[in-house]
Amino acid sequence: MRLLDRSGRARPARIGVVSSGRGENLRYILKAERSGYLPAEVRIVLTDQKDAGALDIAREFKVEAFFIDPTGMDKESYDRSLVDHLEGAGVDLVVLTGYMRILSSAFVKLFSGRILNIHPALLPSFRGLNAFQQALDYGVRWTGTTVHIVDEEVDHGPIIYQVPVKVLDGDTLESLKARIQKAEYRAYPKAIKFFIESDLRQDGRRLIFGRPGPVERGI
Amino acid sequence: MRLLDRSGRARPARIGVVSSGRGENLRYILKAERSGYLPAEVRIVLTDQKDAGALDIAREFKVEAFFIDPTGMDKESYDRSLVDHLEGAGVDLVVLTGYMRILSSAFVKLFSGRILNIHPALLPSFRGLNAFQQALDYGVRWTGTTVHIVDEEVDHGPIIYQVPVKVLDGDTLESLKARIQKAEYRAYPKAIKFFIESDLRQDGRRLIFGRPGPVERGI
Repeated sequence: MRLLDRSGRARPARIGVVSSGRGENLRYILKAERSGYLPAEVRIVLTDQKDAGALDIAREFKVEAFFIDPTGMDKESYDRSLVDHLEGAGVDLVVLTGYMRILSSAFVKLFSGRILNIHPALLPSFRGLNAFQQALDYGVRWTGTTVHIVDEEVDHGPIIYQVPVKVLDGDTLESLKARIQKAEYRAYPKAIKFFIESDLRQDGRRLIFGRPGPVERGI
Repeated sequence: MRLLDRSGRARPARIGVVSSGRGENLRYILKAERSGYLPAEVRIVLTDQKDAGALDIAREFKVEAFFIDPTGMDKESYDRSLVDHLEGAGVDLVVLTGYMRILSSAFVKLFSGRILNIHPALLPSFRGLNAFQQALDYGVRWTGTTVHIVDEEVDHGPIIYQVPVKVLDGDTLESLKARIQKAEYRAYPKAIKFFIESDLRQDGRRLIFGRPGPVERGI
């Protein structure tokens, strides 16, 4: 994703974040932006939850943020409202952090190949809700986290980055969740940076980055 | 799986190996047995392929081995023949190495909880045939290998051990396969040892070993 300004020089990617949750991933993305690690600018934060932690975090980092009330709106109109805000902010890249609604086809098409999501499992294992519990119930010895491009199927698009996370013998839902989330806080900024700086091609579902991928080990 | 002799002392597990393939996993299991790493004795090797490499390896290590010709036999009679040989050899534990037939329900029931298999992916991802190609086509950044207890569904039973293996940017089917197989040669003896020495309980699908699991990292 090479972005150039009018004089032909590389410019930071403009990011819009959409979140339903606590927003801890947002915090780490903003930290990575502010430290200069991430060649990006988070322009806007949108949420469908009035009391989403993401709103507080955006305020803390002085990023424009809006609660878009979904009450009484169908999915298409709601997503149109999101898109209006994102386009108004001149966003190049949409980053989902714990956004619990399924995006409409129109939204996905409009930002095709430019919407990222993070899922707390090594996809294609444990798609959908409660990936932590699914992994525990299945009894896998390794699970992890996946950053992927969003397509019209849930937790399904091309994979940018994965980090394996070991399941420990005494793990509870809480301990496993905490460990995977910790991995996510490092993984998401790294994957976004990699995505922005790579000259991405696609071979079927497989992404070809044209440069060595970020190095990581299982944790 | 605690095995005691008549005087109440721990005795080695008697293993029967069933294979359709080259048998490289068998070689590493036999090496682990001969070095004293594996508290086991491979008593018999069975194969459904006349020219299976496993037969040569068994010969090399002086283990009794039989080609059981499946021609004209239905699955039930064929499996009965396998079982006769395994029981004749006093086998405690059946280890599949690249065995390409689906075991009959009767076979699985008879050795219930005592049949192990290795699958070249991080289950539940990429069950079935061509797991290497499935992983490449899906575009995962990590795949791996899984040692599991066999139940009546293919590549499905409770998981004993997994090792994540990174997919590299330029990976071909051959390079990925070679790297996963290398991981398997270490993983299978380790998992079998762990299985034999553990006091296994099951909580749903999740195995509880009553001792710390073998340590591994992604490779």
